[in-house]
Formats: sequence, structure tokens, C-alpha cells
Amino acid sequence: MSARSPVEFYFDFSSPYSYIASEWVEAVAARHGRTVRWHAILLGATFQAAELKSPVSYPLKREYSIADFARSARFEGVPLQLPPSFPIPTQNAARVFWWLHAQDEARATAWAHAGLRAYFTRGVVLSDAAALLALCTQAGLDPAAAEAAWNDPTWKARLKTENDTAIAAGIFGAPTIVIDGEAFWGNDRKPQIERWLAQGPF
Amino acid sequence: MSARSPVEFYFDFSSPYSYIASEWVEAVAARHGRTVRWHAILLGATFQAAELKSPVSYPLKREYSIADFARSARFEGVPLQLPPSFPIPTQNAARVFWWLHAQDEARATAWAHAGLRAYFTRGVVLSDAAALLALCTQAGLDPAAAEAAWNDPTWKARLKTENDTAIAAGIFGAPTIVIDGEAFWGNDRKPQIERWLAQGPF
Repeated sequence: MSARSPVEFYFDFSSPYSYIASEWVEAVAARHGRTVRWHAILLGATFQAAELKSPVSYPLKREYSIADFARSARFEGVPLQLPPSFPIPTQNAARVFWWLHAQDEARATAWAHAGLRAYFTRGVVLSDAAALLALCTQAGLDPAAAEAAWNDPTWKARLKTENDTAIAAGIFGAPTIVIDGEAFWGNDRKPQIERWLAQGPF
Repeated sequence: MSARSPVEFYFDFSSPYSYIASEWVEAVAARHGRTVRWHAILLGATFQAAELKSPVSYPLKREYSIADFARSARFEGVPLQLPPSFPIPTQNAARVFWWLHAQDEARATAWAHAGLRAYFTRGVVLSDAAALLALCTQAGLDPAAAEAAWNDPTWKARLKTENDTAIAAGIFGAPTIVIDGEAFWGNDRKPQIERWLAQGPF
């Protein structure tokens, strides 16, 4: 088999559908000989560019979405509990991601899993500095270094660049999964993603 | 097997995902011993209630959605060509649906298929009175009687009641498929719908 391009996985730490997809994307990619490259982005930035809001900000859609987050998680066999505060700003968790990414991509991916699971299964509110520091410690990071990173203009700028690049590529929501240049938006595009990976473009 | 409640299918004649789902919903329901009850609604009304707009009204999401309509149709093996005018107001086609429904539900369903297929495969713009009259004739309806129906306060009021009832039930988009009181929004909820029909609540 020739080398295949990685699956690009764009997520926000506050996105339930990103969390659900984060639990299957690596296994699905691996079944088709692909790796996954993770990209922490901020829905706050993409929503502004696309004039969108969180699904829970709209009347009627709010109630449906809350039920659908839970049902979609059960459908995938993924534990999920809607956090006490939702949605939340996630720039600090995302800056820690990019700080780790510059050192070791695998550590950044591990942090992505740790953050998404903490928020969506244990209600760890990632926008709370004390909670985030405690999570860093649990995840094996130096909490003082992580805090310095999320306050560092370098990682603020890096996250902004990543958001701008995603928006320039047409990304407006999360998760967005890009394969061979083709964008799939949403956990619910899993069947199309599986067909693309197995059979190529359709 | 005990009698099972029908699958309730809410659609708008101008909704591509409603069209795609309309091509599989009856076969999926039938495989599980269910019939389908069709409900023509207006996304103009549900979007107003939910403070939403068409997906093609948002920057970035517009380009993605147009590509996704086509890809999702190919995924289901359904022919689709985005019409020259899209989206369109569909109250006349919907009033004809409810006028037929009061006489014979099967004729209303046949009209739903005829209208969705005409708009999404042949570009018949259902908001154009002359095009709609021609389609009525092709579909075996009396065009003068159909035109009288779409101008009749009775069917205007019936459609408004159907919209209001859908909104009161929490419906904000189309297609929405309700099974045993559980709402599934979107053509992309097909895998969850199939599991529900096969195994019951999850």
C-alpha cells in the first residue's frame, strides 16, 4: 500500500460532537492505514466568521441538540455527561495543545483526549484556571509551565494562526475531518468518512 | 408482530436533505413493519421560530453545504441536481399536499415525491405558478383545481396549523423524522433511525 495522507481532525474542547468523534477517529483511520493529525481550534472564531452560534443558542434547536448529544454518544458507545457549564471558552486548553504540539505531537494528542474526556465525562470545566491546572497535573504536565504557556503571546499567536488557517480553508464548525482535501463536518459524517477511506472519492 | 406506530416524516419541498431522505424513508420503515405519514411543512416558519436561516445563508457554511448536498445524495445513490433557484418558497406545493391529503393520503404522498423529484432532479421551480401547474398536470391532478386549492383560505389555514403544530412539538428543521415520539433531525440520522427501528430505544 502506498503512503496515504493523514486524516486531519479539527476539534474544539467544548464541542460534544468533537468529543464523540475523537473517540472513534483514530481507530477508523488506522483501519485504513492512516494516521490522524489533530488541530485544536476555537469555535468562537469559526462561528464569528460564519455568522453562526452554538446549536444550544437557538430556540427549539437547543432542546433537540442537548438530547441529540446524549443519544449520539450512546449510539457510538461513548460515555458523555453534559458539563455543568456549557459551552465554555477553551483558548487556554487549546494553547496548551499547541505548546505541547511544538514539542511532541503525540503528547498534544494525549492532552486533547485528556481534556475532552475530563470535560465531557467528569464535568471538569476547562475554562476554570484552577480546574485546568489540576487536570494538567493529572495528565503528567508541569502545571506552572502549562499556565505560562497559555499566557504566552507565542501560543496565543499560534492558536490565532491555526484558527485563521482553518477559516481560510472553509472550516466553520467542529469536528471537521479533512481527508485527501475533502472536508466532512460533523460526527454524523462517519459513514461517509468510512466509505471515503475504504473506497476513495465518491 | 404487534401493530407499530407510523414513522412521521416532516419535509419541506425546498429541502435537499428532505428530498434525499424521502427516497429511503419508506423502504427503511417497511423493513421494520412501519408505514410513513408525511407532513409538508415550511422551513420559513420553523426557521423563524428557531431564529435560524437556510444553511446556504451563512458564509463558509454555504459552500460546504452545496458540496455536501451533492455528496450526501451520491452516498445514498439518489440523483440530485441543485435547482437554478434555491431555496424557494414552497407554500403552494405544500397547500396542494394538504388539499390532496384530505381526500386521500396516498395521493398526497405521491405528490410529495413528484414535487421533490421535479425540483431536485429536473430543476422545476415549484414557486413558479406556471411550472407548478404543468407539474400538477404531469402528476395527474386537475391543474385548475390545484390552483384553486393553493389560493383557498382553507388550505392556507391548514398549512399554517400544520406548521404551528410542528413548531409546538419542537420541530425546527427538515427532514425531521419522529418515531415513537422520538425526533431525529436530518438525513444524516439514518443510522440512528435504523437502529431505533430494529432494536427500539437506545
